[in-house]
Amino acid sequence: MNRMNLAVADRMQTITPFYVMELLQRARELEQQGHDIVHMEIGEPDFGTPDLVLNAGIQRLQQGQVKYTPAAGLILLREKIAEYYRQQYDVYVPIERIFITPGASGAFLLALGASVNPGDQLMQADPCYPCNSNFMRLFGVEPLLVPVDADTDFQLNSALIERSWSDRTRGVIIASPSNPTGTIITDQALRETIQMTDRLGGHFYSDEIYHGLVYQRQAQTALKHSDQAFVINSFSKYFGMTGWRIGWLIAPEHYCEAIEKLAQNVFISTSSIAQYAALVAFDEDNLQELEHRRQIFAERGQFLFDQLQEIGFDIRIKPEGAFYIYADCSAFSKDSFQFAKDLLEQAGVAVTPGKDFGRNTPEHYIRFAYTTDLERLKLGVERISRFINNRSRD
Amino acid sequence: MNRMNLAVADRMQTITPFYVMELLQRARELEQQGHDIVHMEIGEPDFGTPDLVLNAGIQRLQQGQVKYTPAAGLILLREKIAEYYRQQYDVYVPIERIFITPGASGAFLLALGASVNPGDQLMQADPCYPCNSNFMRLFGVEPLLVPVDADTDFQLNSALIERSWSDRTRGVIIASPSNPTGTIITDQALRETIQMTDRLGGHFYSDEIYHGLVYQRQAQTALKHSDQAFVINSFSKYFGMTGWRIGWLIAPEHYCEAIEKLAQNVFISTSSIAQYAALVAFDEDNLQELEHRRQIFAERGQFLFDQLQEIGFDIRIKPEGAFYIYADCSAFSKDSFQFAKDLLEQAGVAVTPGKDFGRNTPEHYIRFAYTTDLERLKLGVERISRFINNRSRD
Repeated sequence: MNRMNLAVADRMQTITPFYVMELLQRARELEQQGHDIVHMEIGEPDFGTPDLVLNAGIQRLQQGQVKYTPAAGLILLREKIAEYYRQQYDVYVPIERIFITPGASGAFLLALGASVNPGDQLMQADPCYPCNSNFMRLFGVEPLLVPVDADTDFQLNSALIERSWSDRTRGVIIASPSNPTGTIITDQALRETIQMTDRLGGHFYSDEIYHGLVYQRQAQTALKHSDQAFVINSFSKYFGMTGWRIGWLIAPEHYCEAIEKLAQNVFISTSSIAQYAALVAFDEDNLQELEHRRQIFAERGQFLFDQLQEIGFDIRIKPEGAFYIYADCSAFSKDSFQFAKDLLEQAGVAVTPGKDFGRNTPEHYIRFAYTTDLERLKLGVERISRFINNRSRD
Repeated sequence: MNRMNLAVADRMQTITPFYVMELLQRARELEQQGHDIVHMEIGEPDFGTPDLVLNAGIQRLQQGQVKYTPAAGLILLREKIAEYYRQQYDVYVPIERIFITPGASGAFLLALGASVNPGDQLMQADPCYPCNSNFMRLFGVEPLLVPVDADTDFQLNSALIERSWSDRTRGVIIASPSNPTGTIITDQALRETIQMTDRLGGHFYSDEIYHGLVYQRQAQTALKHSDQAFVINSFSKYFGMTGWRIGWLIAPEHYCEAIEKLAQNVFISTSSIAQYAALVAFDEDNLQELEHRRQIFAERGQFLFDQLQEIGFDIRIKPEGAFYIYADCSAFSKDSFQFAKDLLEQAGVAVTPGKDFGRNTPEHYIRFAYTTDLERLKLGVERISRFINNRSRD
């Protein structure tokens, strides 16, 4: 075999791995050896899919509804999403601008594929969810990571955008509630970032996949301020449909023809059973179940926030959404990846190291997820506390 | 809104639309007006998913198995695929090289994403399935379309590859059985194309999504001749699981780390319910049902092949697989797209125009799909025959 055959594509040098996978694998090994691990690293709700949605899926399978759907998705589901935006945000979105996608991943693929060119830059807060940057790299686009801190709720604002803009910058991605920080951009800051991006001539992408999972106040949709924003959302987190792989993209009208063509080519269609099941996701009964879950998440989040601070983690801003707490562990270790490894080996608690979320002093941070029940979170906190006490005695 | 915001990405200028969509939309309008349309344009088996698989899906949903799976897919499913290659082709594939993907689309995304760079060329027979070229364009890769005809079974061979190779060519895609021609590359030609590609230092990609749907002889897998080939396959066509969105990629060992990283970032995971359902796809009972369906497809294909020739279509090589016939209609029209439109409007038969499959005299060709039952095919053939008789009398 000729050596040339062995060349992995250049983009793969830039696409980052998930460092937490190393910890996950080790956690599995430890569990196989009989150790108990408290999982506080998992970005997936523990609740599973609500029964109403599950039963709708079963019924549709019984009817054999397993054929391709139109590339943009079932019209009925797009109508229900449009109706949800009217009710939830008082925003009118024509269904022609709504595309059903294989998760938020698919929505990012369509949005970026249709709007950016190799060599472009897109701006994003750091810390941030790594996949968003890696989608850019897939298309030869460079993530322009702007360090943020508690002063701006770990979010971009218009001043940061203006100051960080370069000749090659083509747009801005906001994620609110944010993964890993759980912080929400204020409505005013959202409007100002959109206006600034617009003034600079850039695209605006709003990652709203944790909408619904908010504990103090609603998160506003970018569509409230502009019909030129790309909005990425998902049935995975709030609606509890992770493994079904279904989300949606709302695109500016000008891009819809390109996006439909792209969807036809890169997906053919989104899982039909996921689409049929999601038709009942907005039913009142289901929304009540989701509200119940939201309250449980809120309780867990409050508990963990209080306890981690008590132990001595520095959490400079209280998370208001998602199910994450991004905690500064530098009081205990200047190497958060090693700290996470030690925590797993010595205390049986799995967390995600800061280095999975960017280059903004990640070595000071770990991310806790409260996707496990209060009982287990209590056990996790006890173990962490004991681990740190032992450590400081050493 | 600044004008710059309105720039659709450059790649979208090169990604081709599906021209058949225009016909499909018109067909739907006609149907809504009460007209009966015989659908011979659809690339989806009419049978739906076999009961065994459907019931496995229902059962798994009842158990609530809807969480993310590992990015590369369920180990048990990868093992079953490996076992299938042993039984079907007598080829041993380590499961580390098998990735479960959201359809063949996902497999192409991973294979190309991990192995080609912007500015590269990949060689492909023309006519061919348009999505494969469009996946290249997604990554800034140029399709090097090599015209083929009945002399080489509408497939590439080593001489064509050697002659057409350029400084920028980085690999070759073979699709066998082919969409739209239904032709199969001979085992010898397959081996020689792999050897030639290897000698020239290129990647080899084998699109095997119609394997199983073969009517005279087996199609050989590229893995029989090289463990350096990328093999793309799917549960959609032969296994009847279109809307579930599940396929697989078999990659050379050297690429597996990059591909796993890419899968984590661009999919997170393939639909879990599709994966659980597919676990029974290789069961003996299911394979018997698929064999039964294969015989029905064979009967339809033979019928349509005979009848279309009788009517006067020129089919220079008998299709041996998939469910397509690529027929030269230049005896009736020098503009096959217009011919397809007329056939729809005047005869109530929907077909796919040649221009959806490349630049190799597409105006002479239309593609017939036999994804509808014999009764309807007979009706379609009658209508086409009458349409052509009327036309020649004009």
